Order: sequence, then C-alpha cells, then structure tokens
Amino acid sequence: MERVDHIGIAVKNLDEAVSYYTDTFGCPLLKIEEVESEQVRVAFIDAGNVKLELLEPMSETSAIYKFIEKKGEGVHHIAFGVNDIDSRMEELRGNGVQLLNEVPKKGAGGALVAFLHPKSSKGVLYELCEKSGEKEKR
Amino acid sequence: MERVDHIGIAVKNLDEAVSYYTDTFGCPLLKIEEVESEQVRVAFIDAGNVKLELLEPMSETSAIYKFIEKKGEGVHHIAFGVNDIDSRMEELRGNGVQLLNEVPKKGAGGALVAFLHPKSSKGVLYELCEKSGEKEKR
Repeated sequence: MERVDHIGIAVKNLDEAVSYYTDTFGCPLLKIEEVESEQVRVAFIDAGNVKLELLEPMSETSAIYKFIEKKGEGVHHIAFGVNDIDSRMEELRGNGVQLLNEVPKKGAGGALVAFLHPKSSKGVLYELCEKSGEKEKR
Repeated sequence: MERVDHIGIAVKNLDEAVSYYTDTFGCPLLKIEEVESEQVRVAFIDAGNVKLELLEPMSETSAIYKFIEKKGEGVHHIAFGVNDIDSRMEELRGNGVQLLNEVPKKGAGGALVAFLHPKSSKGVLYELCEKSGEKEKR
C-alpha cells in the first residue's frame, strides 16, 4: 500500500461535525454528498496530506448507524488509495486476507471500494479505494 | 491543522502486527522503540503520505492495555503534526476544546504530545504532535 487516501469517521450529526473540523481545526471542507446505496451523507475534509471522510447515517439500515449504536462516534475505517483494485484484491486474497466484498462496490465520489475484514487486519477495518479514472490514467 | 503525522493503532502483539503490515501490505518498517513512561512498545510503519504507529502494551498499567481490554485491537488515535504545540493547545482551549493534558508530555521519538478529549472531538481521540527540533526549524 503506497498511500492513505482518507480516514473514515462515523458521526451522528454531519453539519455539527463539519463545523467542528472547519472552524475549530481550520481544515477546509472539500465537498458533501449522499451515497444512497450506503445510506450515508458524507463530507470530505482536507487535513493536508490526507482526507477525513465524515459519515452520517441517513437511516437505520446504514452500516454507519449500526456502528454508532454499537461503538459510538469515532474512527470507522482507514482507506488505502490503489490504482487497480481488482489486482490488489486478488493479491490480498492470495496472502490469506479475508475480504468483506467479493467484487468492488461504488463508494463516495464514484470510487470503487472494497473492505478487508478487521479480523484479518489486526482489528482495523481497511478499505481499498480506486478513484474513477485511475485505471485510465495509468 | 495542516497534516496528519500518524495514525495510532493498538495491537496485542507488535511483532505479528509488524509482519502483517510489512509482508501483507508491503509497507516498510521505519523503527521500533519503547516508550517506558507510557509502557508501550511502538513500531512506525511507512504508509506513504502518513505513518502508522503500532502500539503494544508493555504492562497492565498502559493506557493501550486498557483500551484493548475495553474495545479490542484497532485505531486508537489520529495525530496532527504541529510546529508549536503550546500555542496550538492555547488556541484549542480558547475554542472550548477540552484537552487531556495540561502541558505537553514526551511521546515516541522524543516528540512533544498532547491529547484532545474525544468528547470535544466528535468521538475521535486526537493527538497534537511536535517533533523535536520543530520549533528550531521555524
């Protein structure tokens, strides 16, 4: 893995969290969007070398809703930026890593994403994240 | 905050975790050290734009031991790199943020560190981290 694209953080109230990060930490807001399929509202915060992805559940069916119910607000995942998600998934599987997704799914910003099982990864939920157009750029 | 210096991750077994990050993720190991005062053994892993700080408790008095007992292995904190920790602490206090340290303490690599209360920071334990020599470099 060559770089961390973003750190995903589960929050109860996106607008309050965005205010905290922009006003108190002085980090710029990059964009806000909804990922209907995941039932989350997402804000990307610029923390310089890495982005913070604030995730607010839109309904009780959202994985983020269940996460907050169980563990409270806080860090949800760490996402590695990759250029070719399919070959990375293949490589990790070959190394005995358990993946939570059979094939990549659409995430925020139209990225292709897949998650590694925290049990494989010493308790951390890692995401692989291929930005749209990454393959074309290679 | 202008950059994330590292992500702190609590692990039960440092050697196993280092093997996972270096062999499976292909991330280089930067160094291993002990922070006696915090009762932790620490490995820094190079994830490109950010470091991963793996933290193994050396005894039951370690905050990392208690964290793992309560929550299991996983992300413990996010550390912002700062140039002048005292003025940042002052500024945050002025903005109503609760700090867990009155004055900075010595962390891994001889850095000066201070923590923000997760209740102030939407559930995330944030650290401020001033590397030794940062002030002189300004």
